[in-house]
Amino acid sequence: MDSYLIQVKNGAGTRPSILDVRINGTGKGKVRKPHWAVRASEMSKKTFNPIRTIVDSMKVEANPKKPMISLSIGDPTVFGNLPTADEVTQAMKDALESGNYNGYAPSVGYQSCREAVAAYYSCPEAPLETQDVILASGCSQAIEMALAVLANPGQNILVPRPGFSLYKTLALSLGIEVKFYNLLPEKSWEIDLKQLESLVDEKTACLIVNNPSNTCGSVFSKGHLQKILAVASRQCIPILADEIYGDMVFSECKYEPIATLSTNVPILSCSGLAKRWLVPGWRMGWILVHDRRDIFGNEIRDGLVRLSQRILGPCAVVQGALRHILHRTPSEFYHNTLSFLKVWSPKEETWVGGETVKSETPIESERLENNQECFEYPNFFRVVITVPEEMMMEACRRIQQFCEQHYQCGDGIQDLECDK
Amino acid sequence: MDSYLIQVKNGAGTRPSILDVRINGTGKGKVRKPHWAVRASEMSKKTFNPIRTIVDSMKVEANPKKPMISLSIGDPTVFGNLPTADEVTQAMKDALESGNYNGYAPSVGYQSCREAVAAYYSCPEAPLETQDVILASGCSQAIEMALAVLANPGQNILVPRPGFSLYKTLALSLGIEVKFYNLLPEKSWEIDLKQLESLVDEKTACLIVNNPSNTCGSVFSKGHLQKILAVASRQCIPILADEIYGDMVFSECKYEPIATLSTNVPILSCSGLAKRWLVPGWRMGWILVHDRRDIFGNEIRDGLVRLSQRILGPCAVVQGALRHILHRTPSEFYHNTLSFLKVWSPKEETWVGGETVKSETPIESERLENNQECFEYPNFFRVVITVPEEMMMEACRRIQQFCEQHYQCGDGIQDLECDK
Ligand SMILES: Cc1ncc(COP(=O)(O)O)c(C=O)c1O
Ligand SMILES: Cc1ncc(COP(=O)(O)O)c(C=O)c1O
Repeated sequence: MDSYLIQVKNGAGTRPSILDVRINGTGKGKVRKPHWAVRASEMSKKTFNPIRTIVDSMKVEANPKKPMISLSIGDPTVFGNLPTADEVTQAMKDALESGNYNGYAPSVGYQSCREAVAAYYSCPEAPLETQDVILASGCSQAIEMALAVLANPGQNILVPRPGFSLYKTLALSLGIEVKFYNLLPEKSWEIDLKQLESLVDEKTACLIVNNPSNTCGSVFSKGHLQKILAVASRQCIPILADEIYGDMVFSECKYEPIATLSTNVPILSCSGLAKRWLVPGWRMGWILVHDRRDIFGNEIRDGLVRLSQRILGPCAVVQGALRHILHRTPSEFYHNTLSFLKVWSPKEETWVGGETVKSETPIESERLENNQECFEYPNFFRVVITVPEEMMMEACRRIQQFCEQHYQCGDGIQDLECDK
Repeated sequence: MDSYLIQVKNGAGTRPSILDVRINGTGKGKVRKPHWAVRASEMSKKTFNPIRTIVDSMKVEANPKKPMISLSIGDPTVFGNLPTADEVTQAMKDALESGNYNGYAPSVGYQSCREAVAAYYSCPEAPLETQDVILASGCSQAIEMALAVLANPGQNILVPRPGFSLYKTLALSLGIEVKFYNLLPEKSWEIDLKQLESLVDEKTACLIVNNPSNTCGSVFSKGHLQKILAVASRQCIPILADEIYGDMVFSECKYEPIATLSTNVPILSCSGLAKRWLVPGWRMGWILVHDRRDIFGNEIRDGLVRLSQRILGPCAVVQGALRHILHRTPSEFYHNTLSFLKVWSPKEETWVGGETVKSETPIESERLENNQECFEYPNFFRVVITVPEEMMMEACRRIQQFCEQHYQCGDGIQDLECDK
């Protein structure tokens, strides 16, 4: 039974990576002919993260005369000019040295950490208890679990345009359809509420609200948030709120967690340590379950717990540090981060209106096109502003120079070929 | 357009958690009647991890006269008797203090870490390069990505019985069917190769081989591994090798990475830091891609990269520590862990043949039944042997006492009701 003959041949030219294996069975005279044909799954093919694809595989042919200035990824740590707080590092050291955080945590996170997060965000308008918090491996996994519990393949979700590309990446990967609602540049990137509501159909599983907004750098007013909630309430659609930039706003505007403004719409609010505490690599995120009318009920909570048991959540050492990170980080730290960012824009990441251009440039054209692909918004490109001051100044000079060289006609943003 | 009327009513008795919201549209006279009906997705309902469900929600009514001894989860850290090596903790401290590992790593992991893992496992029979390594958030995520890239919903995978429950958890969650092949207790838990091969059909996407085996504590011989490879080769089925217990074997047996014994079968080998380095909470795992005949080709590699971009991988600080963890952990550390475990069995986790019993007991009956559910194997229960010596002795005394009290007939393992 273990003796057999395998003839290995190279496949035909069209499929050079596949081998043809023909087998002559021994004994019984039965000839089976399986052959190697290992194909990547549909899911893997449907999964595409444009930002990661660009950033992780960047082999830029930079202008040899000018060192590259990367304005592409919202990682505040890359230039070393925005370190995390000493208290944050110390909390990790303490957790590590205690030796108490090497073992498996419960899949939804340690009780004490969930309690710390609940206490941090709880307020009279949107109270939270320990069981309302589920820890995740970054805000990305929080969003993934929230989407995976709310929507079935074939259903759709409402997603901001321009906006963070991960929503589409995860939805398509799960077989969920994406419908884009518009943000209006002329109205400080508020949502086009009419168009939003027109997208709703019987297959709409949730509305993603990202406030403050990555990529627009906008912060919705209380009034606008109430109008968004009214749409959700009218259409009976739960909200997935991506609030990872919460509290990272300048003193002129006020950030309102959307759950504090609603008494009925069920909301899963996703956030984490990445942005405010400047440690995106630590992969600590969470879901806050706001469900005061018991519309999610046990079913959605159970579903989230089940999903958390697939691969478990964040690193236990970071969990062990979480309480101190939330409590001991001094307010000057948050303040200093904002002061640095303020020099450049109303938000860490922002949009600069401009023309789409095709040319070899300091910020080379390939990247400008990539920006469109990432954020579903042609004729704009996005820059991050976590770069050190001198580099930022130099980048601005290059952008200005580039625009002066290429901007030749004033027919408006429709004319993509204007510099020919 | 923003004025509207919502009547909130409690739903009927059958669905107490759902509210009925009836809306009278203003203006146009169009009356729409959406209502709240938020249901957990099919995926979340299909996802069930029996071990996690039991361990995370354990509210045991212990025998008040006897403190509970938990022999259920393979977490070597819970009793504090098996700490990780000082060098491992130090490597983490160094990575943390450098401040260089707070930012986003590439989704497949830092180049330097992947290189370190490749160098650690590479050997002439199964060479590995940097691009053959993909880091993951624990061996669990490594298995998840490997399954997700190899199988489509509706296809099936071959899974050991008895065996680790996560394979089934992840497969069902992804809509992949599970077919169990048998491990034979009378043959030191070797695979029933005939029965294995009989399960293969045109929808079989991969064969999971877990060696050394959690839950059997067995280590396959070179000869047996070659026979398994022969089946895979004959049937043209790629192998997902779960080798997280690799090298954790006693000196009598030799662990052979399955990829070192094959020149043609494409293999994704999954492993991580959890077991050998005793830090399961750190969530560091990896996939090694063995594909010397280019059968996986770019397609599977690309697919893995794409999947890694969904939620990104392990904590960057642990990545920063990885090279030193692999290089600096002294061999006495591994040796001491094994010496401790050796007292109790040939593996960290092992099976004790025995009867299924229903009764209040020191290892209470609910748990014995749970054990069957977890490992798909009635009439056996599993204990972990990472418990401190005195507790282990006491546990053995209790088990012996229990068996003496309940074991009354000798009709063999078929007779489930024998102690009535
Ligand atoms: C709006 C928004 N949400 C979520 C994330 C993902 O956060 P994390 O790194 O914690 O997964 C990002 C990261 O850039 C983001 O900008
Ligand atoms: C056989 C086997 N594979 C994989 C895993 C998961 O490992 P990790 O904790 O790194 O996700 C375990 C954990 O118990 C296991 O026993």
